Amino acid sequence: MAISSICVKQLGQLFALPRGRVRQRAKFVTMGPKVASAMSPSSSVLRAVLNPRSVAIIGASESSQKFGGRVMNFIVKHGFKGTVLPINPGSPTILGFRAYPGISDAPGPIDVALLAVPGAQIAPTIEACGKAGVKACVVLTADFAEIGADGAARQDELVRIAHRHGMRLIGPNCLGFINPGLRLALTSSVALAIEPMPAGSIGLVSQSGSLMAALISHAQDLGSGFSAAVSVGNQADLEICDFIEYFLDDPATKAICAYIEGLKDGARFLALAARCRDARKPLLVVKAGRSDAGANITRSHTASLAGSDAAWTAACRKHAVVLLDDPEALIQCADFLVRFGAPGGEGIAAMSPSGGTIAVTADRIAAAGLRLAQLSASTQRKLHEIVPATRPANPLDVGGLAREQGLASAGACYELLADDPDTAAVLIVVATTPQLDDKVRLWAELALARGKPTAILLTPGTLVDSSRANLRELHCPYTNRMDDALRVLTAAIEYGKALNAPAEKTVLPAGFGAVAAFTAPAAELTESETKQLLGLAGVAATPERHARSAAEAVAAARATGYPVALKLISRTLTHKSDVGGVQLDLRNNDAVAAAWQRVADNVAKLEPGAALECVVQPMITGGIELIIGSQWDAQFGAIVMVGAGGTWAEILRDTQCALAPLTPRRALEMVQQLRIWPMLAGSRGQPRADIDKLVDVIVRASWLAATLGPRLAELDINPLLVRPTGQGAIALDARATLQPPQGATSKASS
Amino acid sequence: MAISSICVKQLGQLFALPRGRVRQRAKFVTMGPKVASAMSPSSSVLRAVLNPRSVAIIGASESSQKFGGRVMNFIVKHGFKGTVLPINPGSPTILGFRAYPGISDAPGPIDVALLAVPGAQIAPTIEACGKAGVKACVVLTADFAEIGADGAARQDELVRIAHRHGMRLIGPNCLGFINPGLRLALTSSVALAIEPMPAGSIGLVSQSGSLMAALISHAQDLGSGFSAAVSVGNQADLEICDFIEYFLDDPATKAICAYIEGLKDGARFLALAARCRDARKPLLVVKAGRSDAGANITRSHTASLAGSDAAWTAACRKHAVVLLDDPEALIQCADFLVRFGAPGGEGIAAMSPSGGTIAVTADRIAAAGLRLAQLSASTQRKLHEIVPATRPANPLDVGGLAREQGLASAGACYELLADDPDTAAVLIVVATTPQLDDKVRLWAELALARGKPTAILLTPGTLVDSSRANLRELHCPYTNRMDDALRVLTAAIEYGKALNAPAEKTVLPAGFGAVAAFTAPAAELTESETKQLLGLAGVAATPERHARSAAEAVAAARATGYPVALKLISRTLTHKSDVGGVQLDLRNNDAVAAAWQRVADNVAKLEPGAALECVVQPMITGGIELIIGSQWDAQFGAIVMVGAGGTWAEILRDTQCALAPLTPRRALEMVQQLRIWPMLAGSRGQPRADIDKLVDVIVRASWLAATLGPRLAELDINPLLVRPTGQGAIALDARATLQPPQGATSKASS
Repeated sequence: MAISSICVKQLGQLFALPRGRVRQRAKFVTMGPKVASAMSPSSSVLRAVLNPRSVAIIGASESSQKFGGRVMNFIVKHGFKGTVLPINPGSPTILGFRAYPGISDAPGPIDVALLAVPGAQIAPTIEACGKAGVKACVVLTADFAEIGADGAARQDELVRIAHRHGMRLIGPNCLGFINPGLRLALTSSVALAIEPMPAGSIGLVSQSGSLMAALISHAQDLGSGFSAAVSVGNQADLEICDFIEYFLDDPATKAICAYIEGLKDGARFLALAARCRDARKPLLVVKAGRSDAGANITRSHTASLAGSDAAWTAACRKHAVVLLDDPEALIQCADFLVRFGAPGGEGIAAMSPSGGTIAVTADRIAAAGLRLAQLSASTQRKLHEIVPATRPANPLDVGGLAREQGLASAGACYELLADDPDTAAVLIVVATTPQLDDKVRLWAELALARGKPTAILLTPGTLVDSSRANLRELHCPYTNRMDDALRVLTAAIEYGKALNAPAEKTVLPAGFGAVAAFTAPAAELTESETKQLLGLAGVAATPERHARSAAEAVAAARATGYPVALKLISRTLTHKSDVGGVQLDLRNNDAVAAAWQRVADNVAKLEPGAALECVVQPMITGGIELIIGSQWDAQFGAIVMVGAGGTWAEILRDTQCALAPLTPRRALEMVQQLRIWPMLAGSRGQPRADIDKLVDVIVRASWLAATLGPRLAELDINPLLVRPTGQGAIALDARATLQPPQGATSKASS
Repeated sequence: MAISSICVKQLGQLFALPRGRVRQRAKFVTMGPKVASAMSPSSSVLRAVLNPRSVAIIGASESSQKFGGRVMNFIVKHGFKGTVLPINPGSPTILGFRAYPGISDAPGPIDVALLAVPGAQIAPTIEACGKAGVKACVVLTADFAEIGADGAARQDELVRIAHRHGMRLIGPNCLGFINPGLRLALTSSVALAIEPMPAGSIGLVSQSGSLMAALISHAQDLGSGFSAAVSVGNQADLEICDFIEYFLDDPATKAICAYIEGLKDGARFLALAARCRDARKPLLVVKAGRSDAGANITRSHTASLAGSDAAWTAACRKHAVVLLDDPEALIQCADFLVRFGAPGGEGIAAMSPSGGTIAVTADRIAAAGLRLAQLSASTQRKLHEIVPATRPANPLDVGGLAREQGLASAGACYELLADDPDTAAVLIVVATTPQLDDKVRLWAELALARGKPTAILLTPGTLVDSSRANLRELHCPYTNRMDDALRVLTAAIEYGKALNAPAEKTVLPAGFGAVAAFTAPAAELTESETKQLLGLAGVAATPERHARSAAEAVAAARATGYPVALKLISRTLTHKSDVGGVQLDLRNNDAVAAAWQRVADNVAKLEPGAALECVVQPMITGGIELIIGSQWDAQFGAIVMVGAGGTWAEILRDTQCALAPLTPRRALEMVQQLRIWPMLAGSRGQPRADIDKLVDVIVRASWLAATLGPRLAELDINPLLVRPTGQGAIALDARATLQPPQGATSKASS
């Protein structure tokens, strides 16, 4: 599907606008006469860039010791089907292709130019490409934004030049791309030394070129492949989301894999993820920089800010994005989902011809938190007609069966396991066994025929390479390590659960007040101010009486009724527990007066001469302490969190996060995923906590965060005392950080 | 080192005695004139069995479709250096070897006979072997103890026959063994289809034959190999510990790997593990049956009782046994430890030529709980003379360096990282890069030259097979997946820590009373009885007053002082919380009377007409609730446990276990490894808990368990209230299960 260069130029100019305005005008563009496609304008441009009819290699040579030479050699080696235009002032021909002294000398139209020239020449070369009507430049050269402010300025200049000519950029600091369908390797990566390029249905976009190379190699080994694989480097212009959108719109792409260090536009990523989910096209992501050390590196590597791990986890959970910890697993999981689709449940049936291996498998499945399928009595009975009744039915040891019926028995066992109503996916752990190749082939054929998600793990090494070859021939995914098999199954089951979760239509809770109008005198709210804000949102908090002297405190305590708590109110000493500003369980006037003195002494050490203000609150006990919080994430907007609270909060770190706002159903799910859920649910003679009220508070906190948007940088209700059923939940303490009001009130309320 | 067959017969007879008596008489045997070796008698026998001069294959044929034929074919293929005696009444020669109609017709001495005959013929064939003076039989045939009582009886008969003739058995239900040094493949496993057999310095003993086969294949792929690899099947006679002892005594074995489903003698395993530790010969174990599902399978697979996972973990921790979750990792970790020894610390320095890969590596290292080395300022400065200063120094991105100095720079970066004082081990994550093969070889050579533990991970696939070949040639260990690299590093660092931990000399604490004389009227002790026992051991518990009526309870409460707790004492309703038998925080006479009535009503529902007895205790608050417990493990003896207690115990499952008795140092270490340690250590204005007293209680509980031995089936102190420093720790509640006194009082007090 070619589109005219004029149209592309218009589009390019449009995309040179700030992104927000581009999207506002997108409707106009897709209505235009020349783009008669369902594709977004961005995808139409990328279709031309990733499927070029002609490519220019600027700095081409014959030497594979040079970048431009390696690219030329790969282009020749893999046999690109389009026009190749080597640009080099010194050679009339390069590797048999006619070469041109400059880009302006080469015949157009030129879809893509790859720049393999030193850093100082990049800007003028881009200028020349623009003048020559090139649609997009691929810039491999490094030392731009990733090395600091100076590099960032030079990088911005490249983008300005390109956009002036309506031209797009991939890179800089990237390794280009491959399009196996066109036999086009527009990259200098040594991964392309191996033939053939792995063609297939995975669309890969990577912020790391070397990581893309390793995945190309893995796809080759596993018999998998790509519709296209792109490394985007510093994302000066074209960025990860542009390629995700292209792959989403590309019918040849069945699954999208992304290695991400940081996003340029979190909201766009979320919108695309939602579209992928709706299209049931799996989007799989490895996100680097989840740890502090990793985040440091992403900054120096591709000038990316990593973003909060909690926000990433919440965002991926909401939009059915498969978030993985391992790059190679992207290929394995994508392949599995492309071949089998998402499992419809979570029961795993496992089998192996090795008793030892199946015992280890049982342990590993348990350790991975996967659930073994509960086979029906009928399935078990039929299995035990084939294997001795002394063996457990799941996981099933299918070793040592009579050789004559060995193959048939192996097949029958698979069918019985796979067809049980509780089996969502099967794990076959292949160990040495007679007729190994035949059995593996049979299992694969049975799995593919019934479309039953089946992970085949080949535990021996090269010994069973013949089976590996057979599986590649059948296009049946397999793994070589238990870690990977369990990763694939976990990812597939979680993806299935996310796909099948009911749509989340969020509704503002009744009694939710005018929080947007809330004004605060400072950024760090005191406990009292935070509780006022919570009150507007409909969240109950302890009543309180203010006191400015010991006598006032005693009077307040008497009015409140004993026992009471006395708490410091200070705009500067906000972590009041840490400074001895919280005195609990005071049972009489003397205790209150003494407590006042302790707080006064503690504060005097830190802020001599400061006026003291405290609040007196009733001691409320009997319940379970939770923490409810929210945070504004620059990439994904408001995130709400629930976890074990009180003094346990920082020790257990037993928390669940979600994008705000959320539904009561999702809030309940978060609560049920806490390790402390059994305590809330009531156990060992303890009453069940007021879960309905807890869920209500989470939902209200999420609306508070979503409504205030970036203004509410942080909110902590800790502890929220959740009392027994029917008795509600009450914020015993809370704090918040507000930013001055900005234009936008909510970024991620979609 | 051959020993005469007469001597072997004597030894064999000796070993037919119950194991306990064998060990008592071992001294006499090793003093005997014919065994002039440092080897144990068991090892001497095994040396003859695993290094046979002659092997008989009973049921030999030429068809690789049959067990006996496959064995013969492997013997021919691999070129066994000793005498081969095929036994088959139908053929005068088999594969060029003269065959004999029966074992009695074959010329002796015959060291080993492999029986590839149907189940019904096994017993008479063993009898015939015994008469022919065979030293050991290898029985591949299955359907013995693993299929139930009938099979177990037939298996016992095999052992009786063998021992009558002073002969040893390997199996039944096994796959034999290989000795690559002798080119002997005495197995029917198809793993031997590949040549050459992987020779090396790992001794492998496996309860699963198929799993042994997979590991042989992995060793081939990784360039590793075995001094011998043995599958022991049902361990009817020779068992895992016999082979561990042999490998321990065998100078050609540098590391011992074991796949274990269940032990025949836990104490012997512990003693051997301690010897391995003292000899600094790594013992690496995969233990199957750690989950419930896994334990079910081990029973049906090799008739093994799995034993408790907590006991296994504690036992391995104590004796520096490397406990792994993955069989293939046995080879990888053993190889690494053989080549590099144990790291002397825990700091990891990581490097990669890919910025993306190193970002992911940072995240994975953090997720694995490994610690990044804190490089010295000098190391950092020197590194930043080579790589841009914008890049973090650890983990280090060594990509994109100038090509001319690329190799030298890559080497220099490795040396700087490896030689930093805080670097205990290096992780090199190889990604595509110019001069990849040269760099990998250089890194390996530098690592081997300085003996610095260095895990090389090759992330691309077959693309970098040339580097894999180079590493095998250098005998430098490598892995292909991050999971494995991290597993190797974790195992090596933990092994190093265990080796370097100070020796644990346990000392009975002062004031530890005559607990061995404690008698109880029943198996399930009441709270009061358990606290009496604790008192003998020097552990403080809440004082209590007994009451048999509401009036007595009120009187007891007044004498105790309010507030009080009222608790049911019942021999039948032992989970008193669950039945509403615990009433807390009673503040006056009326509250006590009302509480008595509630308990009475609750008990009346369950046990109408039963006489009610309660205790009244003071309410003691202020502190952190822990659980201290002990359990008698049939394999490893008394295990002591500490964890988060009270209502948190079952929810957090935050526990640490150790073999009893233990030292205060080890008890402190357990406490520090709890997730709730920060809470005990004092944080956020909370006082530090009385750690000394907590440690004392753990030590006392461990001595209680060790002293009572199997009599104390279970002890639970829950909660133990650990009060602020100087205020001690007190058992608020406790229960115990006693067994009637037996002969032995302590099994594992070594």
